[in-house]
Amino acid sequence: MVNLIMIIMMSKNITKKGILYGVGVGPGDPDLITLKAIKAINAIEVIAYLIGDNGKSLARSIAADHIGDDKQEIAIPIPMLSDPKPAMAIYDEAAITIGNQLKNGHDVAMLCEGDPFFYGSFMYIYSRMIDEFKIKIIPGISSIMAASAATGVPLASRNDVMAVIPATLSEDKLSAKISVVDRAVFIKIGSNLEKIRRLLIKYGLIDRAIYIEYASMDKQKIMALNDVDGDVAPYFSLIIIK
Amino acid sequence: MVNLIMIIMMSKNITKKGILYGVGVGPGDPDLITLKAIKAINAIEVIAYLIGDNGKSLARSIAADHIGDDKQEIAIPIPMLSDPKPAMAIYDEAAITIGNQLKNGHDVAMLCEGDPFFYGSFMYIYSRMIDEFKIKIIPGISSIMAASAATGVPLASRNDVMAVIPATLSEDKLSAKISVVDRAVFIKIGSNLEKIRRLLIKYGLIDRAIYIEYASMDKQKIMALNDVDGDVAPYFSLIIIK
Repeated sequence: MVNLIMIIMMSKNITKKGILYGVGVGPGDPDLITLKAIKAINAIEVIAYLIGDNGKSLARSIAADHIGDDKQEIAIPIPMLSDPKPAMAIYDEAAITIGNQLKNGHDVAMLCEGDPFFYGSFMYIYSRMIDEFKIKIIPGISSIMAASAATGVPLASRNDVMAVIPATLSEDKLSAKISVVDRAVFIKIGSNLEKIRRLLIKYGLIDRAIYIEYASMDKQKIMALNDVDGDVAPYFSLIIIK
Repeated sequence: MVNLIMIIMMSKNITKKGILYGVGVGPGDPDLITLKAIKAINAIEVIAYLIGDNGKSLARSIAADHIGDDKQEIAIPIPMLSDPKPAMAIYDEAAITIGNQLKNGHDVAMLCEGDPFFYGSFMYIYSRMIDEFKIKIIPGISSIMAASAATGVPLASRNDVMAVIPATLSEDKLSAKISVVDRAVFIKIGSNLEKIRRLLIKYGLIDRAIYIEYASMDKQKIMALNDVDGDVAPYFSLIIIK
């Protein structure tokens, strides 16, 4: 009888794949995580997350209070290089590792800064796995909402068209977008700070531009773009137009 | 000695105004509220929220599990009419009621569906009070993040320009916006469903359009826009382009 139950349980494990959860843990403040994310982290045995060049995982640190000692953790070290190839190879490998857990019937919660479907690195895992596995998303507070709240600058109201514009685009493309929207948030500032500053001067928007780095985190900094020195900003910075 | 302490406490109460908190409670699923919102609701004595024509407050119902019996509640009944004047008069009055609480040294938590600074009715209270009072925002999960998660359609990645476009705009304005963005979410569908359908056919996007109503709520419905009958959608509906 025991053997029969074991066989049934084994065959269930073999046939029923686990689900991959993309779990948004919010922009940095550990209190900006949702109950839904906490419940998923509590319920799921295997937790995955990216690790940066500094050896740390921002997503894991945001959710740290909710990760028990009993979890199995998959840490994915992603190098920040101008050449994307090494990172892509690591995503390939991570997708196989996560896929093996799912095939063994284990759910996996991948922790994602902000919202998994809003400019998140989760997309690199998602695109590699969606054809073969069931994936569910738990939305998170994104950096643009956190920046809006911290600066006191509303994102949009009534009939405003709001655009989120990566500063990585060419100057021509940026110009074409800026001219047709009512409200704009520029993300991925990094080494594109000088280009965005130049464009905002050109369009008469520089005096309305608020700069914020590390929104909602302890090291958050907010200032008028006019008061920002230098040409390079941290990766976690954005510009919002009042 | 006791009298002196009382005088100090009274003068402190008289001079120190309370803070108005715009508290995002998320898109509908009660588990999509943040710890920060829950902590604010627990800590603040006076809770304010809007009430619709059906006599119900969606924001209050989302947060209901966290609202103790000891709270003072300010319910603001906003009529949904094509003439905005009656609603504006009610916002004027509500701003005075909330302002009186703040002047008496009480903080007030105004509960907001989604995110307070992202197309929220909170803007009507905010604009009436920001010159006189300190206002802090607790960001919330917005309906567009909830819709993206529920439909499995990512909002944006890498260098995408993502636009949020109110369907209430004129056909000319909508055309001008649609043609310059990579990813679009149309909000405020309501009675504008037919207009958006026509435009998406014109721009060859109709087969990629996913319709969702009541994202993250029990009555959530998702379908291809091609399969949606009729010309009018509920207020809480949006269209996302895959």
